[in-house]
Amino acid sequence: MPAERPEGVRIAICPGSFDPVTRGPLDVIGRAARLFDRLHVAVIETPAPAALFTAEERVALLREELKGLSTVEVFRFDGLTVAAAAAKGAGWIVRGLRSEGDLAYELPMAHTNRLCGEREVETVFVPASPAVAFISSSLVREIAARRGKLDPLVTPRVAEALRRKLP
Amino acid sequence: MPAERPEGVRIAICPGSFDPVTRGPLDVIGRAARLFDRLHVAVIETPAPAALFTAEERVALLREELKGLSTVEVFRFDGLTVAAAAAKGAGWIVRGLRSEGDLAYELPMAHTNRLCGEREVETVFVPASPAVAFISSSLVREIAARRGKLDPLVTPRVAEALRRKLP
Amino acid sequence: MPAERPEGVRIAICPGSFDPVTRGPLDVIGRAARLFDRLHVAVIETPAPAALFTAEERVALLREELKGLSTVEVFRFDGLTVAAAAAKGAGWIVRGLRSEGDLAYELPMAHTNRLCGEREVETVFVPASPAVAFISSSLVREIAARRGKLDPLVTPRVAEALRRKLP
Amino acid sequence: MPAERPEGVRIAICPGSFDPVTRGPLDVIGRAARLFDRLHVAVIETPAPAALFTAEERVALLREELKGLSTVEVFRFDGLTVAAAAAKGAGWIVRGLRSEGDLAYELPMAHTNRLCGEREVETVFVPASPAVAFISSSLVREIAARRGKLDPLVTPRVAEALRRKLP
Amino acid sequence: MPAERPEGVRIAICPGSFDPVTRGPLDVIGRAARLFDRLHVAVIETPAPAALFTAEERVALLREELKGLSTVEVFRFDGLTVAAAAAKGAGWIVRGLRSEGDLAYELPMAHTNRLCGEREVETVFVPASPAVAFISSSLVREIAARRGKLDPLVTPRVAEALRRKLP
Amino acid sequence: MPAERPEGVRIAICPGSFDPVTRGPLDVIGRAARLFDRLHVAVIETPAPAALFTAEERVALLREELKGLSTVEVFRFDGLTVAAAAAKGAGWIVRGLRSEGDLAYELPMAHTNRLCGEREVETVFVPASPAVAFISSSLVREIAARRGKLDPLVTPRVAEALRRKLP
Repeated sequence: MPAERPEGVRIAICPGSFDPVTRGPLDVIGRAARLFDRLHVAVIETPAPAALFTAEERVALLREELKGLSTVEVFRFDGLTVAAAAAKGAGWIVRGLRSEGDLAYELPMAHTNRLCGEREVETVFVPASPAVAFISSSLVREIAARRGKLDPLVTPRVAEALRRKLP
Repeated sequence: MPAERPEGVRIAICPGSFDPVTRGPLDVIGRAARLFDRLHVAVIETPAPAALFTAEERVALLREELKGLSTVEVFRFDGLTVAAAAAKGAGWIVRGLRSEGDLAYELPMAHTNRLCGEREVETVFVPASPAVAFISSSLVREIAARRGKLDPLVTPRVAEALRRKLP
Repeated sequence: MPAERPEGVRIAICPGSFDPVTRGPLDVIGRAARLFDRLHVAVIETPAPAALFTAEERVALLREELKGLSTVEVFRFDGLTVAAAAAKGAGWIVRGLRSEGDLAYELPMAHTNRLCGEREVETVFVPASPAVAFISSSLVREIAARRGKLDPLVTPRVAEALRRKLP
Repeated sequence: MPAERPEGVRIAICPGSFDPVTRGPLDVIGRAARLFDRLHVAVIETPAPAALFTAEERVALLREELKGLSTVEVFRFDGLTVAAAAAKGAGWIVRGLRSEGDLAYELPMAHTNRLCGEREVETVFVPASPAVAFISSSLVREIAARRGKLDPLVTPRVAEALRRKLP
Repeated sequence: MPAERPEGVRIAICPGSFDPVTRGPLDVIGRAARLFDRLHVAVIETPAPAALFTAEERVALLREELKGLSTVEVFRFDGLTVAAAAAKGAGWIVRGLRSEGDLAYELPMAHTNRLCGEREVETVFVPASPAVAFISSSLVREIAARRGKLDPLVTPRVAEALRRKLP
Repeated sequence: MPAERPEGVRIAICPGSFDPVTRGPLDVIGRAARLFDRLHVAVIETPAPAALFTAEERVALLREELKGLSTVEVFRFDGLTVAAAAAKGAGWIVRGLRSEGDLAYELPMAHTNRLCGEREVETVFVPASPAVAFISSSLVREIAARRGKLDPLVTPRVAEALRRKLP
């Protein structure tokens, strides 16, 4: 059931699979948290064989990493991004930007989300810091699987979780 | 067996999976129909688990949507695009253009199709109207599966077909 | 002299040359106005031979177009974007996004602005509506100079100003 | 005064500055000539200090190069592309495509030309052959000015014209 | 076990799946061979259902094609690119460049490989010749499966191997 | 007069206007120096009103910054890049890569340089470190002119030169 959008309070969701969260999205979430009154990080429920970590594990890692940010909450969702926004009363979707190529995927998604929810939902893009913008979860999983160095790419807590998952 | 290319008649094919057809390709086909004497819309036979609609259903939807265009025909094909062009005596392949990123996929395909058929086949690109260019069938299927609003993206007939397919 | 950044109030600037403002930036400003408590539209002081309209004229046109938005103000500035942000106590710069290619210019600018002001200033990108995103002021000036149709690209007021400027 | 668009005859213009024409546009024009009943190559009247060759010289070079194509004509124009199209009764504008980056400039132009003429004018894009697609007139002028090898980039006739112009 | 990096000798690896090798990578390898003292072509061990040719077959084809290049060797590897580089004492990874879109994938990979190996490994990009740069193994497999013309895309030896594999 | 290309010695040039050199190209030159036996940094002679620093000043700044690299030399040139390469007996041109958009300019230049010199000259691309890749000389000049912070973008020596030039 959609939540109301409270008057004068700006609420956003930041959707992703976060499998696992890397330094790039942590940077984006930190910047986005200052932009909104409340920010809900939405963990997409990618089913088990496709994802390395379960949705619960991904939520738990994010909550640990983000516990210093008092206006940020983490939740799981299984459905359309616009439905997740509606569930939280959010009027905005936040997406990080890494490079030009991202937009070929992100712009059509933004236009579609604007048109296809019950109420209009806007997308805003926040550029990640260049020193971490290039990091992707899929490269991180591959490096972890083959025991490469993880510290430049993820926090120590996430590196530890990867080592336990891929011993 | 390849058809002849009749002298002085310009024939093109417009290939796609159209699973299902959205407002974007309908716009492109309408524009391309004026450019050629005959336009054959070629529905790629994506096998059942990969596609939401069967090839028959996709052909039927396209025929309904395009029946006002007297020089346009719809057919199924299972093979190389250049073979489909040869089967219809077509000298051109028409592709819609949505954004810069499309070309990274489309230009190599165009060069390859020019070189690898029995006879040379040219590709021409037609830009979709900006108001519908961003629409993709994969986003439409996802929105339909989760019961989002479909009207900005597809015709009423296609929206109805999606609701029957994904009740 | 830099203004203070008031606690708990989100202030942004939206810089541009707006020579003249088209339907694209008006769409972006309308969306950005909802995202911030105050939005200052900053008109860059491009000198006379380079710009078609004087800075005063560009400011006046914008003020007319935006007078329905109570939290939006328009001002001229001659200097760095980060200095304009500092002058207004703004913590954010808003930029519209039209296509992938825009980012090749916008991302380096965003990174530079983040690093080179007195205080850190973030850039957020807001996608324009696809039906107006492709419009550029330089094309509008060219069309006006040669008496093409202006209505799809600018408001009636701006079209009238162009006709008076380029009779 | 706009020409009529004759019924059942497909007419296009191919605009450019052609300063001078290189192997890339010659390839595109050859392909486009087969697509239309008549193709008018429109030489933009770039004023003297900006262009290396005068408009007359550029027209003359193109006419020499294209004299084997009976349905192609070359003319100068000074104005909007859509006005040039109207003058020739053309319903299409043909543009060559070299790489993804081209579209960032070409798509907005195509959308604008569709909307801003007296009658709707469509743009179609024709990919140049990869072996010549990378050639640009500005690189050719620079190489000629410094006496580099010209043969891979332009025809012998154009190479000779460059050597006479830049002795 | 990592090999030593001998003083004053420049060693590189050129990784890929080469399923099968086309004219594009052969062009790149030939150019890269002149740049390094030793070049190790690393064939990624894509498992059987995913790849058309076995790793042994892909290695054998490459060895035949490259036997004229005395400083080039071919080997299989199953692991991280940076581990393959370490195994050969290589300080560089060579990648061919086809178009702008390639970089969206290649730049993050290059940054990651620089950071995540035991020792720093640099990536250098070598542009393929435009006449063959557009060729991709996936298009070649599709054309071979449907009996299109292969000669413009691969060497006669590889064309023959494709015809035997897909009769 | 072209220099000979000595057998078994790899020589490259790295051309640019360096007006002034920023942290990005310094990073690229450092990486490229390890790749070649000798690296000649070629300072393009942009004439006075176009460039902020004279060619002598730009050469002097580069020599100071690069004096720790014993195989790197700096020189001015006024002509084609391929002529500069010939003058130094270089078989390669090195270019830094910042983002996808760069390639739209760089790839045609690389193909042209390969074809238009007396002898074939190859271009290799070296990606800058992401933390400095976004820096451009034109942004640096603008920030210096308006007294923004320069330290994240250039070395202290270059920052000082900018402050003296733009007091």
